[in-house]
Amino acid sequence: MSNCLVAQSGGPTSVINATVAGIVKANQLNPIYDKVLGGLNGIEGTLEERFYDLTNMSDEENRILRQTPASALGSCRFKLKRDNVEAFERLIAIMDKYDIETLFYTGGNDSMDTVAALSEYARNNGITNHRFVGCPKTVDNDLMETDHCPGFASAAKFITSVAKATWLDYNVYTRQEVFILETMGRDAGWLAASACLSGNVDLLILPEENFDKELFLKKVEECVKEKNKCYIVVSEGAHYENGEYIAAGEAKNDGFGHAVLGGAGKALEAMILESGAASRCKVQDLSTAQRCHVSQQSLVDVNESFELGMSAHMHTADPSFTGKMVGLKRREGKEYEADFITVDADKVANFVKHFPKEWILPEYKGISEEAIAYLRPLIQGEPDLIMKDGIPAYVTPYYMR
Amino acid sequence: MSNCLVAQSGGPTSVINATVAGIVKANQLNPIYDKVLGGLNGIEGTLEERFYDLTNMSDEENRILRQTPASALGSCRFKLKRDNVEAFERLIAIMDKYDIETLFYTGGNDSMDTVAALSEYARNNGITNHRFVGCPKTVDNDLMETDHCPGFASAAKFITSVAKATWLDYNVYTRQEVFILETMGRDAGWLAASACLSGNVDLLILPEENFDKELFLKKVEECVKEKNKCYIVVSEGAHYENGEYIAAGEAKNDGFGHAVLGGAGKALEAMILESGAASRCKVQDLSTAQRCHVSQQSLVDVNESFELGMSAHMHTADPSFTGKMVGLKRREGKEYEADFITVDADKVANFVKHFPKEWILPEYKGISEEAIAYLRPLIQGEPDLIMKDGIPAYVTPYYMR
Repeated sequence: MSNCLVAQSGGPTSVINATVAGIVKANQLNPIYDKVLGGLNGIEGTLEERFYDLTNMSDEENRILRQTPASALGSCRFKLKRDNVEAFERLIAIMDKYDIETLFYTGGNDSMDTVAALSEYARNNGITNHRFVGCPKTVDNDLMETDHCPGFASAAKFITSVAKATWLDYNVYTRQEVFILETMGRDAGWLAASACLSGNVDLLILPEENFDKELFLKKVEECVKEKNKCYIVVSEGAHYENGEYIAAGEAKNDGFGHAVLGGAGKALEAMILESGAASRCKVQDLSTAQRCHVSQQSLVDVNESFELGMSAHMHTADPSFTGKMVGLKRREGKEYEADFITVDADKVANFVKHFPKEWILPEYKGISEEAIAYLRPLIQGEPDLIMKDGIPAYVTPYYMR
Repeated sequence: MSNCLVAQSGGPTSVINATVAGIVKANQLNPIYDKVLGGLNGIEGTLEERFYDLTNMSDEENRILRQTPASALGSCRFKLKRDNVEAFERLIAIMDKYDIETLFYTGGNDSMDTVAALSEYARNNGITNHRFVGCPKTVDNDLMETDHCPGFASAAKFITSVAKATWLDYNVYTRQEVFILETMGRDAGWLAASACLSGNVDLLILPEENFDKELFLKKVEECVKEKNKCYIVVSEGAHYENGEYIAAGEAKNDGFGHAVLGGAGKALEAMILESGAASRCKVQDLSTAQRCHVSQQSLVDVNESFELGMSAHMHTADPSFTGKMVGLKRREGKEYEADFITVDADKVANFVKHFPKEWILPEYKGISEEAIAYLRPLIQGEPDLIMKDGIPAYVTPYYMR
């Protein structure tokens, strides 16, 4: 038997390691591969032949791995460009050297592009003994061809909980007050929209719509006039009609040429106070915690992430299976159920699935009942966490061992 | 039988309602009072005769109340000044009118001043049929005469969890990176210090020490040089030797004349990037969520908060019990246990218990083993939360009914 390699890319999620745990577990139950190797720091470390052997992981470690946030194998923001033939050749040579038949790559749409590019390269060069499979993960929930993405639901559950708790908090005083909750979401508003599950969002600002400052301030004023309070949720990617982010003053840049955002909440606060729409404002930017907390993992999310890994592993029993991503398809019917499906990675690569415009209510009033019905089942259930010294137990990251 | 009144003041905590639940439960088990009235929005609403009858609360509501964050009775930032004789007279008249013998007031050191002032006023005016009892609550843990304050431990548990999770998150990339976690704590560094329970804090900035920018940047540089990373925790109240907050640019003002802080993390980030001590920095300001989350309630904290309410109720069976606060005293010995004690409210009022200087390691290196041994037992255990629609269930605040 040959070996397989699993690696992680892009920003972490709360359940990203559950997919790795699923691949390892599946191979223990049904050994398609001799070894399951973990590639450290994604393609970057793989190209440096930095591996960790996960094959014989204990059941206890497997369980704790599922509740360990952030990429336990390490991550990278290295994008394998299609003209980087040298890197392709080097990767194939390393796969030859370590007898690696299949590379499982967990990530977002950049990672699916890597999967598509590698399988295309193999096909074009008559390489049939190396295969490339994508496993989706992204808190942003912005991948095409899948009902939703592992990682999103746990972030959404955290956001909903914090939205409810901070809403209770800002109401305790009788004074006039505006609360602004800022979530992640550069291009897609799924995370910000999920705050509406709390039932307490007065105004919602998504990147799917051009921001109209005048209308927004009018709505804040009306809301404050009516109830002396206004609870606002804004996505970091909110922008004006000309494309300029409302957090523009704060924008930096990451290695992919994407703007690193933050500060949309502070920008709204400044507008509100300057305009006099309200006299007092508080901002909570959920920042990194929303994608790496353990305390609000959704059981649906952990289980799907784990089983998606198992499904991906199983699919590779078919030797022609390559260039694919395993996704989720929701069944029709009242009770939530989802099946695993496979899709071509190049249909996912570099696209963005936006929050549907038809689910957005006018004048920042939030989201439709249909949107709520889509979101609600995803945040259900809580895993039984293993605790240590008062906080959730975690496995020592493999790149630190 | 006469009645009692319970009211809440100051900033909320995750377990502030457990004390109310304890008072209500104690009176159901051992009825000292005919009615347990909730005073809405603290002294402010009490002076407006806004009450909610809590006497016959169901067991289910009592359980959910214990896990409901933020003041379910509403709060106020109204400080009863000692020269405001009119307000004193009005409060006594209202207590007469509603046959209220005892006022239980939960809050921080301002609230203990209210308890002290009211009992002093009663004593000076020969009023013996009205009594005033303080129940401590503050995430800041800065009250004198008690081992610790209900509310602190749950905030500390949340901070520790987030510190661990974000530390795992910022390590996934090999790139150079500094992470800054900002906690509450205007005058006392207990909350920031509690992050050290994660075991991953490289540098800790507390308000108990004057901030030395030069030394700090040197330490950041050394740490980044050694491991390419640096995890920093800063208290919002960190300040220079001249008293100026390092977040000074961001300071606003609350109704008590205290500065409303925020932005210490951003201030450190600016220093680090400007100096070139590191090239990349991320800031997480925990803001409101640290004091009102439900997901990381400490079981020790919930139970102590509940039982402190029961203890306070029980103490008032003695008709001379007034002007007191119920606090906690830790037993000697290896296993953590604490007893309830009573102290004079005026020994607590307007003082601040700082994080002990002898527990602070030099050069921002964190806290001593003794400090860890003090903190660790407080964050242990998790209550079984009652969930609803994917997030923790809560009672509708009484001031909204």
